[in-house]
Amino acid sequence: MPAFDYDLFVIGGGSGGVRSGRLAASLGKKVAIAEEFRYGGTCVIRGCVPKKLYVYASQYAEHFEDAAGFGWTVGESRFDWQKLVAAKEQEITRLEGLYQKGLANAGAEILRTRAELVGPNTVRLLDTGKTVTAERIVIAVGGHPTPHDALPGHELCISSNEAFDLAELPKSILIAGGGYIAVEFANIFHGLGVETTLIYRGKEILSRFDQDLRRGLHAAMEEKGIRILCEDIIQSVATDADGRRVAQTMKHGEIVVDQVMLALGRVPNTKGLGLETAGVNTDERGAIVVDAFSRTSAPGIYALGDVTDRVQLTPVAIHEAMCFIQTEYKNNPVSPDHDLIATAVFSQPEIGTVGLSEEQAGRQFEDLEVYRAEFRPMKATLSGRKEKTIMKLIVNAADRKVLGAHILGHDAGEMAQLLGISLKAGCTKDDFDRTMAVHPTASEELVTMYAPSYRVHKGERVS
Amino acid sequence: MPAFDYDLFVIGGGSGGVRSGRLAASLGKKVAIAEEFRYGGTCVIRGCVPKKLYVYASQYAEHFEDAAGFGWTVGESRFDWQKLVAAKEQEITRLEGLYQKGLANAGAEILRTRAELVGPNTVRLLDTGKTVTAERIVIAVGGHPTPHDALPGHELCISSNEAFDLAELPKSILIAGGGYIAVEFANIFHGLGVETTLIYRGKEILSRFDQDLRRGLHAAMEEKGIRILCEDIIQSVATDADGRRVAQTMKHGEIVVDQVMLALGRVPNTKGLGLETAGVNTDERGAIVVDAFSRTSAPGIYALGDVTDRVQLTPVAIHEAMCFIQTEYKNNPVSPDHDLIATAVFSQPEIGTVGLSEEQAGRQFEDLEVYRAEFRPMKATLSGRKEKTIMKLIVNAADRKVLGAHILGHDAGEMAQLLGISLKAGCTKDDFDRTMAVHPTASEELVTMYAPSYRVHKGERVS
Repeated sequence: MPAFDYDLFVIGGGSGGVRSGRLAASLGKKVAIAEEFRYGGTCVIRGCVPKKLYVYASQYAEHFEDAAGFGWTVGESRFDWQKLVAAKEQEITRLEGLYQKGLANAGAEILRTRAELVGPNTVRLLDTGKTVTAERIVIAVGGHPTPHDALPGHELCISSNEAFDLAELPKSILIAGGGYIAVEFANIFHGLGVETTLIYRGKEILSRFDQDLRRGLHAAMEEKGIRILCEDIIQSVATDADGRRVAQTMKHGEIVVDQVMLALGRVPNTKGLGLETAGVNTDERGAIVVDAFSRTSAPGIYALGDVTDRVQLTPVAIHEAMCFIQTEYKNNPVSPDHDLIATAVFSQPEIGTVGLSEEQAGRQFEDLEVYRAEFRPMKATLSGRKEKTIMKLIVNAADRKVLGAHILGHDAGEMAQLLGISLKAGCTKDDFDRTMAVHPTASEELVTMYAPSYRVHKGERVS
Repeated sequence: MPAFDYDLFVIGGGSGGVRSGRLAASLGKKVAIAEEFRYGGTCVIRGCVPKKLYVYASQYAEHFEDAAGFGWTVGESRFDWQKLVAAKEQEITRLEGLYQKGLANAGAEILRTRAELVGPNTVRLLDTGKTVTAERIVIAVGGHPTPHDALPGHELCISSNEAFDLAELPKSILIAGGGYIAVEFANIFHGLGVETTLIYRGKEILSRFDQDLRRGLHAAMEEKGIRILCEDIIQSVATDADGRRVAQTMKHGEIVVDQVMLALGRVPNTKGLGLETAGVNTDERGAIVVDAFSRTSAPGIYALGDVTDRVQLTPVAIHEAMCFIQTEYKNNPVSPDHDLIATAVFSQPEIGTVGLSEEQAGRQFEDLEVYRAEFRPMKATLSGRKEKTIMKLIVNAADRKVLGAHILGHDAGEMAQLLGISLKAGCTKDDFDRTMAVHPTASEELVTMYAPSYRVHKGERVS
């Protein structure tokens, strides 16, 4: 008779939870997985997937405009927000089904309930009140947008959770935050015709990204007509007689809009999960503390993905899940590798980046060569659209290794993915130089920058 | 007194000629360059550049259709061919100016005349009849579409040269050929609303490419409504009473269209160039024979680019020019590297490829692992467009080296460029596996194919 009800109990049906549950079940382990909301997690339900679909939707207005330069006359266009929401809903429901099907086919037991820890190896299922035991428990419950309780009127604001499913498209929106979520939504709403203002307390949007790209995107967004207020914050939000939102800002006075969206970071979903009871430690932000093998402080309890606040990205959660499986079920201890993660911001233009920014590299390496190209994308020559693509390679002068690659422009995300392979493999600038160009592409710039644009010595630009 | 009028005389103002002339002049050499038509060559004037602009133009009809799935209602659209031609003309004239400006700024003398060899180190300028001498002569006169003189009625047909500047857009077109030019134009014309038929003598379009992609593109083009007739040829072309073209085919009877376009390969522009007089040897196709340093059989005479028929691509001509400069003027002998050239076909969907096809690799290596993904691009989930992306990695089982990467789908050209870096650097499948995915992108498939789709042993698929 087995000592536990399950070999593995997974709490949370997002990217990390589903991958670990599915793989363990496919290895013949007895697995249950519990999800209180919808399978697919943030990524599928209210993150990556709907976001990218909305990005596509928001680009059509520019397509219609651009077409004129190529000889097209386009009749008047109208956008129906409810149609987009419904189409998105259908697609994420389809994906949700695929996630569950994958679990079911692997033999995992799928539970639709909140589950909480009630002791070592023990979980309570809230729908039935039943308690079950498992040899191993994976916590992969993700995170949620910070509600910013300290802001008077925060309850009048929406977050990215609500943004996808608003009953109607606002005519105007004020988005607080300077991270990728704020920036992406600003571009989406603007593209759909919403008068959009971004307000951010920092000096420049997208902190930690290469400064060049931050400035370039800022300029591009303003050129499109997005208002960006840096070094300012919302101090309160109220409702006026017309039901609109009135935001008091520190420096820019009163801003009246249909919606205020807060995108001020995300916090782990650890509240009320019974972590203390089970002996699972969290840090000051509420994130579960794990070791190099995703083990928590409680024996037999592991944590994956956003709830651990290592790197909050879908592929990272999946990677952590696969490492967990290798380590625990395949006798092959593998530690998640969080180094040199390529990433994209689906702003318009897009950002794609991997490795160190010029500023970070300048702090870590004595001498850098910076290769930089700024050019008008070919399509813009006929569309007449004012836009610039920026491409940058940060190279360690000592060994020619490419430390960072940064792109602002169309398809930057796809490019970052593939540059990621080269950087991960430790390619040098010489490897880039040896590569024949593919013409006409944008990315050929990355292999035809033969001389440094400038050099950096001890963090200072010297030529 | 110098022994020659010029240090360098360049015949041909295309990619290879301009690059070699400009670089030599910028090193202080006395340089003249002669071009009988327009500076910029095939690439700028009637190749890569106008082609890609027309590809963009031809994609709008699909954008307008796709928009509906994202909530947009688009009014009726009209396309004005003359507007596109005029816009293209303005852009290539701008680029032509930039090419000349680059030459002039470097100090090269720009001649607008045909130039022919009349002896060793000697060139005659046809506009004045003047003869000039040069220590070195670069022949970079490119090629032109084969007129297919053997075809009765070939003089009624157009080639890619004329296709960009037709007085009006045909209602229907028959394109002969299965190479990338035929395929790209078939997609362009179809996208602009032209009833398009492709006829090709071979079994499948795009010989030498990976078979999977060839079939995939064929199917995708037919799905769009392009008629493709393989294993058939045009036997004659005539004009009917209405001025339309009547093509007799071997297997598909008579095809009546507004235009017949021949895209049956390109031949070097060597006729009447005085090559024999100067002692420059050509091969049976008329291409100038060169050694590993682009030297012809005549001392002091070099040939670059399409006229040598090594690899007929713009970046290759430019690379050959840069190698010539290093070798002859910088005391640094560099041989052009024609290995592992990434390339794109701007069909719709696009093809991007680098390295060996599965078929080629199967002949060269005993055991292969093939990683293959076929999926619906994310955008198509809402647009409803029936399209598939195919991605393939061909891996040598013995050392895990990635031998080939092949993509059919959006942005495949950009992807091929960056995969080119990895393949050129000799990256292994493990380098791909180590790379974190960027989500949601299409290219993340390339780093998340963990198990081979099948294996190939001695050229045969075994599992």
